[in-house]
Amino acid sequence: MGAVSATARTPKQDRSRATRQRLLEAAVACLAERGWAGSTVTVVAERAGVSRGAAQHHFPTREDLFTGAIEFVAEQWLVALREHAHALPREGVPRTHAVVGMVVDLYTGPIFRAALHLWVAAANEEQLRPRVTALESRIGREAHRLAVEMLDADEAVTGVRETVQATLDMARGLGLANLLSDDSARRTGIVREWSAVLDGVLRRGI
Amino acid sequence: MGAVSATARTPKQDRSRATRQRLLEAAVACLAERGWAGSTVTVVAERAGVSRGAAQHHFPTREDLFTGAIEFVAEQWLVALREHAHALPREGVPRTHAVVGMVVDLYTGPIFRAALHLWVAAANEEQLRPRVTALESRIGREAHRLAVEMLDADEAVTGVRETVQATLDMARGLGLANLLSDDSARRTGIVREWSAVLDGVLRRGI
Repeated sequence: MGAVSATARTPKQDRSRATRQRLLEAAVACLAERGWAGSTVTVVAERAGVSRGAAQHHFPTREDLFTGAIEFVAEQWLVALREHAHALPREGVPRTHAVVGMVVDLYTGPIFRAALHLWVAAANEEQLRPRVTALESRIGREAHRLAVEMLDADEAVTGVRETVQATLDMARGLGLANLLSDDSARRTGIVREWSAVLDGVLRRGI
Repeated sequence: MGAVSATARTPKQDRSRATRQRLLEAAVACLAERGWAGSTVTVVAERAGVSRGAAQHHFPTREDLFTGAIEFVAEQWLVALREHAHALPREGVPRTHAVVGMVVDLYTGPIFRAALHLWVAAANEEQLRPRVTALESRIGREAHRLAVEMLDADEAVTGVRETVQATLDMARGLGLANLLSDDSARRTGIVREWSAVLDGVLRRGI
């Protein structure tokens, strides 16, 4: 009987999980396209093909839905990045360039665009601010840790930690520069030159 | 008689100019504190102590007022920076550090905070987008030119142009990181290390 109810429960749980994931993905797409002002639970539920009631069952508030969505996609992205790390060039400037390129791709893509809308909205919305502050700091820390690992950076060497942090800040700035117009040509040159400079800083201690 | 009407006209022109300036300054403060959604011509007129009619005489549309405001304060800031350039250390890492610090101060201060709200709102508002795109590219170009001049950077040297651009992008990223919480402690270390690295790139060609 235990076995029967277990098999009976599983498809329902799968459906619930799939619904949740559809809502999270629709929420990120909605934020990226319409900004915070245009992003409501109703709009996202419609886009995901889910009833408003079902959406509210998963995410009681608008803040739950959108902070949950950014967290979900950012984590997915970090996991994917870790999985692809083995495909990177083994060492030297080519590896540094590839890692900087991957980080910059994150910050110039649709996930960052969605996060940026949430981030800026949080500056003026009391309900959002503490959650987005915590979320941003968690994602920032994770991205930093991953960058250090993939760059094989020794943070004990003077200046290495700050230069890796600066690389992430530069990537965020490039994301902003890409918001209103296609900045990819300028960005390619910056990523190339900065990767060479960063590689020099990383190898100083060796 | 010409002299009489000239003296009669001047105080009125002065008042009109003062009103315009009060509106522009109130608009920037309003954007920085309330974001785009909370920034209307009415709110700004009230804050500036100007009638709504007078505000609309100066700025027929909401877009005119807010893009005009960012342009005005950014230009004021660039002029002030140019005037203070003589007080910088004469050369070497201390000068590079001082210049990077000034640029980062711009992007982490209230002007950038206001501009950021306008920038992100422009991503989803058709009426704003072309004007903010043009404004952002103009300010970005001016900031780049000023940075090159103050850093005494020779853009003919390979990588110099891109590294100066990367510095401005990093400054924008630091501005974003400072939006929801005080990031000044982390920023101090980043500015110090970045300045040393940038100075090395600038002196490569010498």
